[in-house]
Amino acid sequence: MSENILEKINSASDVAKCSLEELKTLAGEIRGKIINTCAANGGHLAPSLGTVDLTLAMYSVFNPEKDKIVWDVGHQAYSHKILTGRKERFSTLRTKGGITGFPKRSESKCDAFGVGHASTSISAAVGMAIERDIRKQDYSVIAVIGDGAFTGGEAYEGLNYGGTIGKNMIVVLNDNEMSIDKNVGAMSEYLSHIRIMPQYNKAKKELQEFLKGFPGIGETVWNAAGSVKDGIYALLTPGSVFESLGYTYVGPIDGHNIEKMQEIFQKARGIEGPVLIHVRTTKGKGYSFAENQPHKFHGVGKFNYDTGEMIKKEGAPPSYTDIFSDALIELAGKYDNITAITAAMPSGTGLKKFSGVYPERFFDVGIAEEHAMTMAAGMAAVGGKPFVALYSTFAQRAYDQIIHDVCLQNLPVTLCLDRGGLVGADGPTHHGVFDYSYLRHIPNMVVMAPKDENELRNMLYTAANYNGPISVRYPRGSATGVPVKEGFEQLEIGKGEILSRDSKAIVLLAVGSMVKQAVKAAQFLKEKDIYTTVVNMRFVKPLDTGLIDELVRDARLVVTLEENVLAGGFGSGVLEYLADAGINTAKIMRFGIEDKFIEQGSCPELLELCGLLPEQIADRIAKNYGDL
Amino acid sequence: MSENILEKINSASDVAKCSLEELKTLAGEIRGKIINTCAANGGHLAPSLGTVDLTLAMYSVFNPEKDKIVWDVGHQAYSHKILTGRKERFSTLRTKGGITGFPKRSESKCDAFGVGHASTSISAAVGMAIERDIRKQDYSVIAVIGDGAFTGGEAYEGLNYGGTIGKNMIVVLNDNEMSIDKNVGAMSEYLSHIRIMPQYNKAKKELQEFLKGFPGIGETVWNAAGSVKDGIYALLTPGSVFESLGYTYVGPIDGHNIEKMQEIFQKARGIEGPVLIHVRTTKGKGYSFAENQPHKFHGVGKFNYDTGEMIKKEGAPPSYTDIFSDALIELAGKYDNITAITAAMPSGTGLKKFSGVYPERFFDVGIAEEHAMTMAAGMAAVGGKPFVALYSTFAQRAYDQIIHDVCLQNLPVTLCLDRGGLVGADGPTHHGVFDYSYLRHIPNMVVMAPKDENELRNMLYTAANYNGPISVRYPRGSATGVPVKEGFEQLEIGKGEILSRDSKAIVLLAVGSMVKQAVKAAQFLKEKDIYTTVVNMRFVKPLDTGLIDELVRDARLVVTLEENVLAGGFGSGVLEYLADAGINTAKIMRFGIEDKFIEQGSCPELLELCGLLPEQIADRIAKNYGDL
Repeated sequence: MSENILEKINSASDVAKCSLEELKTLAGEIRGKIINTCAANGGHLAPSLGTVDLTLAMYSVFNPEKDKIVWDVGHQAYSHKILTGRKERFSTLRTKGGITGFPKRSESKCDAFGVGHASTSISAAVGMAIERDIRKQDYSVIAVIGDGAFTGGEAYEGLNYGGTIGKNMIVVLNDNEMSIDKNVGAMSEYLSHIRIMPQYNKAKKELQEFLKGFPGIGETVWNAAGSVKDGIYALLTPGSVFESLGYTYVGPIDGHNIEKMQEIFQKARGIEGPVLIHVRTTKGKGYSFAENQPHKFHGVGKFNYDTGEMIKKEGAPPSYTDIFSDALIELAGKYDNITAITAAMPSGTGLKKFSGVYPERFFDVGIAEEHAMTMAAGMAAVGGKPFVALYSTFAQRAYDQIIHDVCLQNLPVTLCLDRGGLVGADGPTHHGVFDYSYLRHIPNMVVMAPKDENELRNMLYTAANYNGPISVRYPRGSATGVPVKEGFEQLEIGKGEILSRDSKAIVLLAVGSMVKQAVKAAQFLKEKDIYTTVVNMRFVKPLDTGLIDELVRDARLVVTLEENVLAGGFGSGVLEYLADAGINTAKIMRFGIEDKFIEQGSCPELLELCGLLPEQIADRIAKNYGDL
Repeated sequence: MSENILEKINSASDVAKCSLEELKTLAGEIRGKIINTCAANGGHLAPSLGTVDLTLAMYSVFNPEKDKIVWDVGHQAYSHKILTGRKERFSTLRTKGGITGFPKRSESKCDAFGVGHASTSISAAVGMAIERDIRKQDYSVIAVIGDGAFTGGEAYEGLNYGGTIGKNMIVVLNDNEMSIDKNVGAMSEYLSHIRIMPQYNKAKKELQEFLKGFPGIGETVWNAAGSVKDGIYALLTPGSVFESLGYTYVGPIDGHNIEKMQEIFQKARGIEGPVLIHVRTTKGKGYSFAENQPHKFHGVGKFNYDTGEMIKKEGAPPSYTDIFSDALIELAGKYDNITAITAAMPSGTGLKKFSGVYPERFFDVGIAEEHAMTMAAGMAAVGGKPFVALYSTFAQRAYDQIIHDVCLQNLPVTLCLDRGGLVGADGPTHHGVFDYSYLRHIPNMVVMAPKDENELRNMLYTAANYNGPISVRYPRGSATGVPVKEGFEQLEIGKGEILSRDSKAIVLLAVGSMVKQAVKAAQFLKEKDIYTTVVNMRFVKPLDTGLIDELVRDARLVVTLEENVLAGGFGSGVLEYLADAGINTAKIMRFGIEDKFIEQGSCPELLELCGLLPEQIADRIAKNYGDL
């Protein structure tokens, strides 16, 4: 038993050769590897620890080289990665050029479908099952989805269509009674209800036993149920909701009992039509710190293996999230119509603190961004002033609702977009680099991004006093470190500020996180005797056209800087204005993210990849200016 | 009884004063008004006929001036409009400056929430109920949602959150066993199941009666159910799924029995927590042609009241939808991996014909655009070649899935976006004017738009042979009328064509529906002795930069033309390219849709409003060119 089993596992098919005892040993070895790697690199520790036994049971029955396993979100798939040819490189997890934090088709043929955002797995699996049958191929299709992702509307759409189309497909509902934070929603309560359902089974047996005590009569009574009996049976079976939707329901079963799961998977493989296997797991299983504090260990930075203590950067400034959190609490004290909404991210968005102070004005709707946005519009329609805090990348889910429910009705909903720009190790599924573009083209929307902590506070204050759709986007991680001022200042909508004006010939128009970079780039340029004007535009929309007019008149080179895709973003807005105004006297250079998906890495590495470090900006400007 | 009741109804509160007999008469009068108006103006006839009795019953209990009624989609709300102060102006329905086809907050204080897209009502209602309670106000909140809209994930998100938060709120499920076309999905099947459930109720009663026949014992047996009794009761009550989700379920009830509905609404008003009232209605009720062919009469053009015959424009060319429909069938014959997916729009997208020819390769997933897109990605991931046909405006729902599931994985999914551009009478909720902008900024996506029927065919053929994400957008209604050629021609990705070259000084770069306008504008200009080059760009992305380089070199004025918002659209792409290439020799003029929502009207009226008629284009170009 002390031998190293993992050493012998070179592909997923080796798992099927292991004995039950070996699998149990292997589970421990995999957990060790996951904890070690996360301690060094950070990562989604608790979700991946929760599914080790499930993965082993699954891969001792199914073969991910042939069968299609779709991991919803994918933050629970580290064992999958380790078991499918990536154990050696696993130490590079979430680093530049290394193993990615989520399944990714280009990384392995065993990654059947790329993931990162929640609630897509059932839809993808339904598509695969349909296509398999059209092509008369033979493989199993399995979606593994957490109860958190189950609150997303797309999961229901997929379940609903999968239930009616009747293809062979297995949905594994990985129920750990939480998503990233505490789970919400009636479906979640229904699952809790199922969890205690064995008592119903017991009651059924008792009733039957009781009736047996009245020979003849009892049997007659039992039979008298007639047409309802199937129905009663369905009720007494937990999971009748899923049965109603067309699934064979199996569960709930212990997601850490490998043998039991093997048995269920074997049986499920033979069932015609869609099957839902309800597995109960413990988030963080096998690492006591994570089991005890699964929220804290959901997604972690570096930590100490032995003590479970997070390794904090000494003296790092507060995060933008912290600044947002405190400012909104302060504003809620001033304005009693302010409410706060999040979609399953109370910790991530900083609203947990708000919920402690104003529990009755805080709403976590689960992983349901569409609902969050329309609900906010509904609140605003009857006099409310909701602030909806989402990650930029997840707000993409509510794009139609932002157009149709918020902006078309010109309702006072404030979007607080956290994780705007490059987010680092989570990679291309999570970068928040489209929001300037997808918000800017919607009529009535105001698009703001702060240069620092105080400006974020002032933008939130400005939003609190603005009677229409308005958004503010700020980056992941530490803010700039400036002293945070008391009080708030009202910003004029659509007005920027000149930060320095050493020369009129080169004008740097920067927004949000790129203001800091522009200021530094200007310093580098100064060292080369190239002098500039640096502007904090504050507003992507409406643009400060008065300021642009004034500055562009005398400029030879105008530079736009944004941490957003170049297509349709802030710089495009500047180009549009200049074209419409008939101003074509200056050369325009745009800095931002080119037309490709950006991989994972540290934020500085990614900024370098995108040519957005101050030195790079300065060099390109110097070269261009020299060429003029 | 022959008196005109509607004459006496000046506001919704007058409905409450009517006797049952008067309400029945009123129902007939309202139906007459709706049929008459739709015969003259077109409109959503069948859905609105189905809800006349429901609306009357509801407004005899609730007051829409105080209570908040949210009509999902809103195409069933004509009686609501007629009863809430708009009966005189109802004849202006769906015309420019007239009554809008959907509830709209700016039109009436009785329109509690603007709608148009499906599945938003429960979320909005939940928001209103929350805000009402925060403000300690007193009114009822009611969402009226069809079983079709119930297939949308957002409806589930709203239902799920509404069920857990427990606010007083009523969801009226208007079940007519169909959405626009035949309904799909397991939930729909579940509703069918409920419809036949009265037999269960009967069985329950029989069982209870039977047990009464055994005094003492029977009662004991009944009680022995103990903890399961509530559960059994829930099962025996139809709607246990809704009960599981936290709703008091009432139904199914006859949605044409006003008296019964009044009674239920009265009771529902007093129930604590969320209530779901399941009402069965007949689409097209009261107009035999519509009752018999509810699909045909869902949304109609002008028709003959007496014969039910649609009034067709003589000799109108086939629609782009027809061209698409035939071309995809032809391509599916050539390529056996092609499949077709739609979201509840088999008729509207023209895929109904496809489904007749290739039933096993056709998938209508219900109103579930998110699922449609991810399912397509799933199919493409295992070798499929899905064509997803959606209306441009509804594809907004799948924006995140287009990014995250299709483009990030670079999968060969083809988006066929019908109703691109201004759609006319359906107005601002339905104009497809954002797609160039929201697709163009996504890496890996190809964005095409045809100038005519043959180019649409060739673009579909090009998509069939392209191994990546690709989209083609075409307008609502009649195509240009050119003779449709046999066969297909492969287009080179990212290559446009010069249509005429009378002068190098002015270059018109047009795309999609604006090519025709550009050609006509060039003719108008020629009459003024102003000569131009006219280009059909074909591709919004990738741009034909070679062609642009060549043409812009000699040009004094470059004009871009698109039926899309100007922010971030095709013209912005041209500006971006020119700026990046350092070309600023020509003046650039952009034609497109300004930064505001465009109201309803006929397409020519709306084009005029947007300055996009050929004469307007020519005049503006002439003026600008003169100023150069």
